Amino acid sequence: MVNQRRPDGSLRHLITLDGLARPELEKLLQRAQGYVCLPGSQPRMNQRLAGITIGNLFTEPSTRTRVSFELAGRRLGAEVVNLEVQLSSQMKGETMLDTIRTLESLHFDMFVIRDSQAGVVAHVADNVAAHVSVLSAGEAHVSHPTQGLLDALTVLQHKGERFDRLTLAVVGDIRHSRVARSAYEAFTGLGIGELRLIAPEGLMPQPGEFPRGVRFSTPEDGLQGCDIVMMLRIQKERMQAAAIPDGGDYFQHFGLDRRRLQLAKPDAIVMHPQPMNRGIEIDDEVADGRQSVIRDQVRNGVAVRMAVLEQVARPRPLRA
Amino acid sequence: MVNQRRPDGSLRHLITLDGLARPELEKLLQRAQGYVCLPGSQPRMNQRLAGITIGNLFTEPSTRTRVSFELAGRRLGAEVVNLEVQLSSQMKGETMLDTIRTLESLHFDMFVIRDSQAGVVAHVADNVAAHVSVLSAGEAHVSHPTQGLLDALTVLQHKGERFDRLTLAVVGDIRHSRVARSAYEAFTGLGIGELRLIAPEGLMPQPGEFPRGVRFSTPEDGLQGCDIVMMLRIQKERMQAAAIPDGGDYFQHFGLDRRRLQLAKPDAIVMHPQPMNRGIEIDDEVADGRQSVIRDQVRNGVAVRMAVLEQVARPRPLRA
Amino acid sequence: MVNQRRPDGSLRHLITLDGLARPELEKLLQRAQGYVCLPGSQPRMNQRLAGITIGNLFTEPSTRTRVSFELAGRRLGAEVVNLEVQLSSQMKGETMLDTIRTLESLHFDMFVIRDSQAGVVAHVADNVAAHVSVLSAGEAHVSHPTQGLLDALTVLQHKGERFDRLTLAVVGDIRHSRVARSAYEAFTGLGIGELRLIAPEGLMPQPGEFPRGVRFSTPEDGLQGCDIVMMLRIQKERMQAAAIPDGGDYFQHFGLDRRRLQLAKPDAIVMHPQPMNRGIEIDDEVADGRQSVIRDQVRNGVAVRMAVLEQVARPRPLRA
Repeated sequence: MVNQRRPDGSLRHLITLDGLARPELEKLLQRAQGYVCLPGSQPRMNQRLAGITIGNLFTEPSTRTRVSFELAGRRLGAEVVNLEVQLSSQMKGETMLDTIRTLESLHFDMFVIRDSQAGVVAHVADNVAAHVSVLSAGEAHVSHPTQGLLDALTVLQHKGERFDRLTLAVVGDIRHSRVARSAYEAFTGLGIGELRLIAPEGLMPQPGEFPRGVRFSTPEDGLQGCDIVMMLRIQKERMQAAAIPDGGDYFQHFGLDRRRLQLAKPDAIVMHPQPMNRGIEIDDEVADGRQSVIRDQVRNGVAVRMAVLEQVARPRPLRA
Repeated sequence: MVNQRRPDGSLRHLITLDGLARPELEKLLQRAQGYVCLPGSQPRMNQRLAGITIGNLFTEPSTRTRVSFELAGRRLGAEVVNLEVQLSSQMKGETMLDTIRTLESLHFDMFVIRDSQAGVVAHVADNVAAHVSVLSAGEAHVSHPTQGLLDALTVLQHKGERFDRLTLAVVGDIRHSRVARSAYEAFTGLGIGELRLIAPEGLMPQPGEFPRGVRFSTPEDGLQGCDIVMMLRIQKERMQAAAIPDGGDYFQHFGLDRRRLQLAKPDAIVMHPQPMNRGIEIDDEVADGRQSVIRDQVRNGVAVRMAVLEQVARPRPLRA
Repeated sequence: MVNQRRPDGSLRHLITLDGLARPELEKLLQRAQGYVCLPGSQPRMNQRLAGITIGNLFTEPSTRTRVSFELAGRRLGAEVVNLEVQLSSQMKGETMLDTIRTLESLHFDMFVIRDSQAGVVAHVADNVAAHVSVLSAGEAHVSHPTQGLLDALTVLQHKGERFDRLTLAVVGDIRHSRVARSAYEAFTGLGIGELRLIAPEGLMPQPGEFPRGVRFSTPEDGLQGCDIVMMLRIQKERMQAAAIPDGGDYFQHFGLDRRRLQLAKPDAIVMHPQPMNRGIEIDDEVADGRQSVIRDQVRNGVAVRMAVLEQVARPRPLRA
């Protein structure tokens, strides 16, 4: 596992939430809460990252996450540069590491990386100069730490800080989901009361993964009495693997509609990392309904990323 | 028709010039004129949009319009973020509306949208939160309101404010042109004396469209005594539709050269929205000649967009 | 040859280093040295280019050069806009010149251009308005002046200012290399003692080019006693042209490894413009070794570009 801390124990990178102690998670959420603002109001801005240059390296497309990191950095006064590294480097055969060293020499202080290949983010973090921080913006099926934090912040806002009294159900393609893995780390780290995994056999994670998760094969069983229902996006190409009995469609067996949601507590909240496949894993009535906090999740994304950027930034040496 | 006003009657969106009263148009042009600056001089800048975040959504390529909106926003102190929404969203099957809601939750205050599909811009405007403004940067063949305004500003600068004394001739592929439609709305709104449409039959708009336009089938007839000659770009794939008699080429019948321009008044000005097909709808001598105000149009584009951005922005609630 | 000076003799464009006198080169390097900063320290920033708008036109992909120009401009307070001109213009058939005129009218003060076609940069410079400067960011095989300057700055830092005592060996595909041509101009301009060209026959420049260069057909002959070894990138598609005898691979005959490097002086430095083909023109041990100054070259790139941007910028007329 990658060491994401400085010798003094402070957080230098954020590649996984695994290993973050509860007070550390709570401090990040508290800091993020200070950056949350209402729609239409002036966004929070300061100059705490003035002089810092952040490079966004997204080798997978992502409007939402890229833009929210970009806005988070700019609203803290940093320079943010989008780097199309895949295009320009891979075309010339330059290795990832030479690219990183090159960017480092251009005086980038932080890299925000999204990559479809497991291990790339950690590989970069292991090789950059001591003053550079690396933040994962989503890594293969493995990890999406700022998503885990924004999910936790959303729950905190709606359900308060007594996570031990809450039951969270994660529903869908858990096996291939970085969102589910980071949610698991965030919520177990915060002491969630119960964490349920609801998925067809073919999309359930391997035995041994998600050790504290209680597994259910149908929403009818798993949603009973839940406080939080977290729906996951299902890729069309994986529905086959879901091996739904009788060839029925995915929504019929695992999609969230009003009827299924009524199995959860009356004040249960509904989450989705987006983009949604409406009509496949969730229907419009629930997605846009009273219990949906999906838009809050997006709004919290900028706040959480501001908190993380500020957390990993450190005082810099005076000019040489 | 989309309602582009706030309850108090002020302009919230700019999707069409249709419905803008003459004083409203004149006020926008006056404000824009204040942002015009000479080549080589320091561009006008202020901080009136500080704290405002603008998202550029261009689903059609456009260097000129995208960059001029980007510069306009930045020169007013706004954050401007280019969003490649088509790429990243459509690839995942996310609906346009979910994308807009997502971006809204990231605290965008304005969206500048160019789209090749009629109705998309209005659809977005109808669905965004109350504090968000939507500006069209060109919509299918329907509308390009800031182009209409910059054309009007260019005429104002060269011909003065007595629009009722002027004759404008629009020449070329009027049927498929958003530029022509917005020019029609701008100049009829400002009380143009006479507005002529010159096009081959196949490129003339449907009967009923452009009701105040006087139709001519040849430049020889239509250009007589004009004050303003507005040439339109002809797409190569539409020349067939132009059904030029005898299979002759487009320039021979509808292109603007010195000889044809002499039919207009001696001080007539020549306009073109660019990019030009030199040698097809206009020749070099005229495009680069003394009567051409084509470069003024581009320069005025930034000024007009600054005026529009400032116009639709409104005082914001204090921080929550 | 393009005239890149103003009537008063000051540098307006930077398209080639050819014709820059030694004091002029030295002044640029001195100014650049003032912008060099240590990794991890706060980058040098000021507001000397506030109000200036710079357009990056890269029609070839280039992460390193584009980003270093972008950061250089921003760290001097300029607005920097990346323009995907090739995409949006060529698709519509707009000519290069109309595009440039259009961008000029948007109040760009400087264009930074990379193009794969020889002559395009000079063509633009010959045609822009008097207040606009044009900087080459790499032109076909012809010229890459800021690369020449950063190479010279790197040598200056490691070897001091007595260029006349130094021997520089350039190794590889010199024939097709803009890096080699600009290095030749920079180092002969600074009075280098000896400049050697080491290449297989098929990659040696035409007779008459590089007149002061001493030609060697093997590294074994050419590297003897050198102070600086500048390796060039070899394109895979040109290895055929290298016509290596016996069909052996390129590295075997022209690649730099520890054994060959020992032919140079013990304190010789190794340079490479990047991206490297590790294992083809250079091996890992040398690329990452004690004598390598490759990362310094990248770091110096931002400083040199800041110096050049500042140099060509000129006081602007008061507002109209």
